[in-house]
Amino acid sequence: VINIKTILGKNDFIESLRGKDATFILSMSTTKTCEIDGLTQAGLPGLIPLTPTLDAEFLTTGEVRSLIDIATTPTGVPTPALITRGVHLLKPFQSIYLNNLGIDTIPNIEHFQINNFNIKPSDSIADNANIDAFEIFEKGVDYGKSLQVDTEYIILAESVPAGTTTAYATAKALGYNVDGKFSSSFQSVPNEIKNKTIQQALNTISDQDDIFEILGKVSDNMLIFNAGFLLGSSYHNQKILLAGGTQMAAVLLIVDAMIKHMQGIYDSSNIALCTTSWIYNDSHSDIKSLLEMVGFNVNAYCTDFTFENASHPALKLYDQGEAKEGVGAGAALVYGALNGLKQNDLIVQIESLLG
Amino acid sequence: VINIKTILGKNDFIESLRGKDATFILSMSTTKTCEIDGLTQAGLPGLIPLTPTLDAEFLTTGEVRSLIDIATTPTGVPTPALITRGVHLLKPFQSIYLNNLGIDTIPNIEHFQINNFNIKPSDSIADNANIDAFEIFEKGVDYGKSLQVDTEYIILAESVPAGTTTAYATAKALGYNVDGKFSSSFQSVPNEIKNKTIQQALNTISDQDDIFEILGKVSDNMLIFNAGFLLGSSYHNQKILLAGGTQMAAVLLIVDAMIKHMQGIYDSSNIALCTTSWIYNDSHSDIKSLLEMVGFNVNAYCTDFTFENASHPALKLYDQGEAKEGVGAGAALVYGALNGLKQNDLIVQIESLLG
Repeated sequence: VINIKTILGKNDFIESLRGKDATFILSMSTTKTCEIDGLTQAGLPGLIPLTPTLDAEFLTTGEVRSLIDIATTPTGVPTPALITRGVHLLKPFQSIYLNNLGIDTIPNIEHFQINNFNIKPSDSIADNANIDAFEIFEKGVDYGKSLQVDTEYIILAESVPAGTTTAYATAKALGYNVDGKFSSSFQSVPNEIKNKTIQQALNTISDQDDIFEILGKVSDNMLIFNAGFLLGSSYHNQKILLAGGTQMAAVLLIVDAMIKHMQGIYDSSNIALCTTSWIYNDSHSDIKSLLEMVGFNVNAYCTDFTFENASHPALKLYDQGEAKEGVGAGAALVYGALNGLKQNDLIVQIESLLG
Repeated sequence: VINIKTILGKNDFIESLRGKDATFILSMSTTKTCEIDGLTQAGLPGLIPLTPTLDAEFLTTGEVRSLIDIATTPTGVPTPALITRGVHLLKPFQSIYLNNLGIDTIPNIEHFQINNFNIKPSDSIADNANIDAFEIFEKGVDYGKSLQVDTEYIILAESVPAGTTTAYATAKALGYNVDGKFSSSFQSVPNEIKNKTIQQALNTISDQDDIFEILGKVSDNMLIFNAGFLLGSSYHNQKILLAGGTQMAAVLLIVDAMIKHMQGIYDSSNIALCTTSWIYNDSHSDIKSLLEMVGFNVNAYCTDFTFENASHPALKLYDQGEAKEGVGAGAALVYGALNGLKQNDLIVQIESLLG
């Protein structure tokens, strides 16, 4: 079987979800930040903004319709959507919803719910992301308040190329001391480009900017919308697994900053962050430390799933620190673990997807 | 795992049902056509009209109460209900309903919903089936309009001995050029008896007969009722998997003929046909070609499940072309595939049912 490890908090919350159905929501968003050369390897060179579209198509249908091959990185690391799709084939999610939070190309699929929030892709944070952060945040709150699912919990995932860079800039701009704590899709983190971009982003902020003005300049739609979504969902105690690594930690830091800003209270007992062991064990980032900066308690989990017993060389790269997380891979593994999925069955399934 | 193949259309519809619960409805009907010697091997010699009753008992309880043994064909091919029951034991349907569309013997079971529509078994099409087709059709429409299930979709299956003969006669009488396209429960199709019966059926029709008069003479209750059921269900966009091979294709051809007759429009986006690989790969019939004759688009699927890895000789006969389909076996396999069922686990389960 796949075992669940507790990163922070206790295992009660996740154990209470064992055997229960889940609704999987993929937040798709692009930021022009991803077009900065060498910043991300989440996608095909020249076609990085297409990554959320391809991930959504592959997750739902097993086909990459807006392109010929599954999005792979230059060194041949396949998208983490492979892991999520593999889990879905063996232990299906009850429903998959796709949230369009600003993408260039709508996924070419029918019969799946693609929610349109009239959000445009954001600009590069190196200049100014030009996001109406208050509007995006309010859309997230409204969605969280109104969303009714017929499962016990939601797995809230993301596909946002260059998303760790915007997450890092966001947390730093909000005043959190997060240097060295954010992840990257690279094993060899491109620190120089990344730090330069983040510094440029911070330079766009002035002392007079309020929290929404800051977010509008240095963040991305996924982070802002989902912070609102968490707050909106808390009105009806919706259980949510934040499916991701340091980007989802940044969502929590935005919620934390909002709560402090508004002097409010947030009941975090219905949420948990779930990520991969590659993030948890990453020596270049520190998910646990990020979560400890959040002013409320957060349960966080990962699994012991690795590709140690895989034979396909592309999968071995995960164990060397490439890709690490995305498209809800870590939470999908937790979901698999909660439903009795075996490590080797999943590896066989994922390898069969690679052909 | 069991993999799903797309026969016609795209895989979006079936992928959108992955992980979702299903209601299984078995349409039970007999036509005296089945008493024509050598026409069908769907049941025990001399007791063929009992087949739907036995299939229903075995599907729901695992016991054949109105007889000692599971209905087997003369060469020892067991009923496809074995496959459906095997799937139900490993990945249960949320509910099983039994629709009595004219059978001689009510299944001897309690606690399951047996819906009585006051329909009598039909006569042999060689003389005149003597069905009040308009009444049966209207009953189907009413049932489709009123039926509320608490699952995302319905699997609509059938058990009608000699049903491929009545289906063939029906499609031909409605003017479709279907020679050589209809299946048989035999590997060695009894063409002479079958063609003679169909010719006799066509001889009962006169030029003045309208569509209902034609159906009343050459069709069977299951085909007519379920054509109405599909039309009635479309009023509330009920998702339905037509669980069968060429008989279910004939249901669609009746709907097609009705729509053309009434100059109406039918939204087929909520239905799909699911059958077995034995039907899809059958060289004596052509399910795909039948579906292409339908004037609206139909998604159709099968799986890659076979008994290649089975050890029981009775099951091997399926791979040689005996039995092929029935009691929703093909759609049950699709349902299993949508819920992570493994080929070998199912084979072991089915073999244990054979004892």
